[in-house]
Amino acid sequence: MARAQWVGLMALIVQKFGGTSVADIERIRNVARRVKRAADAGDQVAVVVSAMSGVTDQLVKWVREASLQYDAREYDAVVSTGEQVTVGLLALALQEMGVKARSYLGWQVPVRTDSAHGKARIEAIDAAALLAEMGKGIVPVVAGFQGIAPDGRVTTLGRGGSDTSAVALAAALKANRCDIYTDVDGVYTTDPRIVAKARKLAKITYEEMLEMASLGAKVLQTRSVELAMKYRVPVQVLSSFSDAPGTLVVDEDEIVEQEIVSGIAYSRDEAKITLLGVPDRPGVAAAVFGPLAAANINVDMIVQNVSHDGKLTDMTFTVPRGDLQRSTKVLEEAKSGLKFERIASDSSVAKISVIGVGMRSHAGVANTMFGALAEKGINIQVISTSEIKISVLIAEDYTELAVRALHSAYGLDRD
Amino acid sequence: MARAQWVGLMALIVQKFGGTSVADIERIRNVARRVKRAADAGDQVAVVVSAMSGVTDQLVKWVREASLQYDAREYDAVVSTGEQVTVGLLALALQEMGVKARSYLGWQVPVRTDSAHGKARIEAIDAAALLAEMGKGIVPVVAGFQGIAPDGRVTTLGRGGSDTSAVALAAALKANRCDIYTDVDGVYTTDPRIVAKARKLAKITYEEMLEMASLGAKVLQTRSVELAMKYRVPVQVLSSFSDAPGTLVVDEDEIVEQEIVSGIAYSRDEAKITLLGVPDRPGVAAAVFGPLAAANINVDMIVQNVSHDGKLTDMTFTVPRGDLQRSTKVLEEAKSGLKFERIASDSSVAKISVIGVGMRSHAGVANTMFGALAEKGINIQVISTSEIKISVLIAEDYTELAVRALHSAYGLDRD
Repeated sequence: MARAQWVGLMALIVQKFGGTSVADIERIRNVARRVKRAADAGDQVAVVVSAMSGVTDQLVKWVREASLQYDAREYDAVVSTGEQVTVGLLALALQEMGVKARSYLGWQVPVRTDSAHGKARIEAIDAAALLAEMGKGIVPVVAGFQGIAPDGRVTTLGRGGSDTSAVALAAALKANRCDIYTDVDGVYTTDPRIVAKARKLAKITYEEMLEMASLGAKVLQTRSVELAMKYRVPVQVLSSFSDAPGTLVVDEDEIVEQEIVSGIAYSRDEAKITLLGVPDRPGVAAAVFGPLAAANINVDMIVQNVSHDGKLTDMTFTVPRGDLQRSTKVLEEAKSGLKFERIASDSSVAKISVIGVGMRSHAGVANTMFGALAEKGINIQVISTSEIKISVLIAEDYTELAVRALHSAYGLDRD
Repeated sequence: MARAQWVGLMALIVQKFGGTSVADIERIRNVARRVKRAADAGDQVAVVVSAMSGVTDQLVKWVREASLQYDAREYDAVVSTGEQVTVGLLALALQEMGVKARSYLGWQVPVRTDSAHGKARIEAIDAAALLAEMGKGIVPVVAGFQGIAPDGRVTTLGRGGSDTSAVALAAALKANRCDIYTDVDGVYTTDPRIVAKARKLAKITYEEMLEMASLGAKVLQTRSVELAMKYRVPVQVLSSFSDAPGTLVVDEDEIVEQEIVSGIAYSRDEAKITLLGVPDRPGVAAAVFGPLAAANINVDMIVQNVSHDGKLTDMTFTVPRGDLQRSTKVLEEAKSGLKFERIASDSSVAKISVIGVGMRSHAGVANTMFGALAEKGINIQVISTSEIKISVLIAEDYTELAVRALHSAYGLDRD
């Protein structure tokens, strides 16, 4: 019954269009046609849009030219104009096609956020005004990426935040579905640029999508998937340039035939740091990771070797590649308290992950991974696991080889 | 005493910068330096800015591409972003120089307007929040050209509206002066491109400025001068690219040695229509001008000839040149009710005006005009007068000749 709502009957749908989908007036018209089609089919539609692609970059560039250490409140005032332009233009394009539409800025909805300018979090969306307009047959076109802080100043949600705007709006409107139109036509078992036999997934669970998103499959912003999972909003990822069905991101119960592994993700944004000759005693990990956390550096995979002599050990962990230099600097500065012998680092590493909710109930998933990599002669440097994911760190040069081997090993190749 | 306030002592000043003054980041920094200088000198400063030059045109172009018969509410949402970008960037540039500053959008001040989107009128400015910030030493940077309608949607004031924003803000703040920085360095006795000996006026009255503004001397928006006159706000027009003193627009009492004539204005945006063979009876004027008013066409100079035979007469009037075709069409369509013989029209005409509050108390001003034009062999087609202005319609080819002759005849030439 739940699914019937969005198969045949009239539904309330939020459609979100990213920057490349609204890059110029002709593409905005294309988006308007798509919205009109849904409205003509009897669905109630609310639309969320990003800035025209390139516009936000230009605005950010101006802000940086005006001030090196910029005030994030003024950054938000400037950068939020990109979405404001698009909502107005799309509302006009819809009206031109005979669809009743009006634009809404973040503060007009209102989309209430906290005061963390530049990376604000949505706290509440008051959907009453929008619902009243939709009841009159009007399509609201809402500016993504922006909101209003408690003190009445404009906020932005951070890059990619329009996905989050769309899902939060869908939750507030109790929408039947949130369609995220983008420049890819769905979520694949892995990157099709690496594996020609990658398959588009018809469905994927929130948990899997979350792992995919945080592992560098840049289809959806992580925060938007978290919100979708929290409020159980069915999300569809699809292309604004084709009519092919996309990928549905849904609850685990909604997927009848669950594969053990849904996808293989990889990330090259990794660097490995090894501290050699660290005293093997309680409190060492805190002494190492405290200064890194204080410097806002995100440590990911961590391995501490067994000490051979009971006195000194080695500690290996990964950080985002762009933070490598800063990380070693922070550690050198903390050396007096840390007491390690020396630092080794390697920025030519990649993280390969196997993801699937099915692995919760299936043994042997890790073994398949290790076997497949061994067969290709790929050395595993670090391993980390979660309930639905196994990640390994390998030499970056083997990335494509590893991804292809694993894709085959788990039976994901398209026939 | 009143003048001492803005000669030596600390003052509250509104500074307004137009599009060419904020055309790029370097110019925005230049504006910031000027604001800082006033703040450093101990003045309280509030700033109003326009969009970076060219930006509004691009936004308007997009709107027109999206929809031919565009919804003025969406036009306003899109076009108001230009000023939003500039206020953020200028606030940042000021902060970078150590000046405490923050941006204000129209709805944040708030600047309350009516609902006439695209050409809204300011109804009230609540200056309490701004004054509180200024009391803390913060320079508010306010977006010109925009406001908020009673229903909470963004409005714009029409092209050039930032002047009006600045004067209205100065009135609300009870400012000692409103400085309008532009790309000319003041108000001249006439167009210096035509008369090399034109002089910059040190002072001009509101009434004269109003005539100048409405006659095509595009220094200040007419509505801003009306507001300044109504609230007795001293306005200074000066260049943002030099440090030369500008022109003060003030009350008549403030000008001790009043010239009889302050300036010569001209307008080429004129077209003449003559209706020949119109019945000479009551109600004819209403029958002619009613349809034109209904078509939103602004009729200016009107002359009705004396009827020779008591039955038929001719009627001559002027309309903006761009409305000529539409005007003759409207009149032809109304011909059955109007009963004229035929229409003659001429778009090669110009209006030359002599302006000065001194003419109220001096006779012979018109005679000097007619004499000077006659001497150059320039035929006067239509004459109209007001308390402080005499305008004549002449063949467009004689524009420069007429302006130069009158500038000399009234003793306005620089030595």
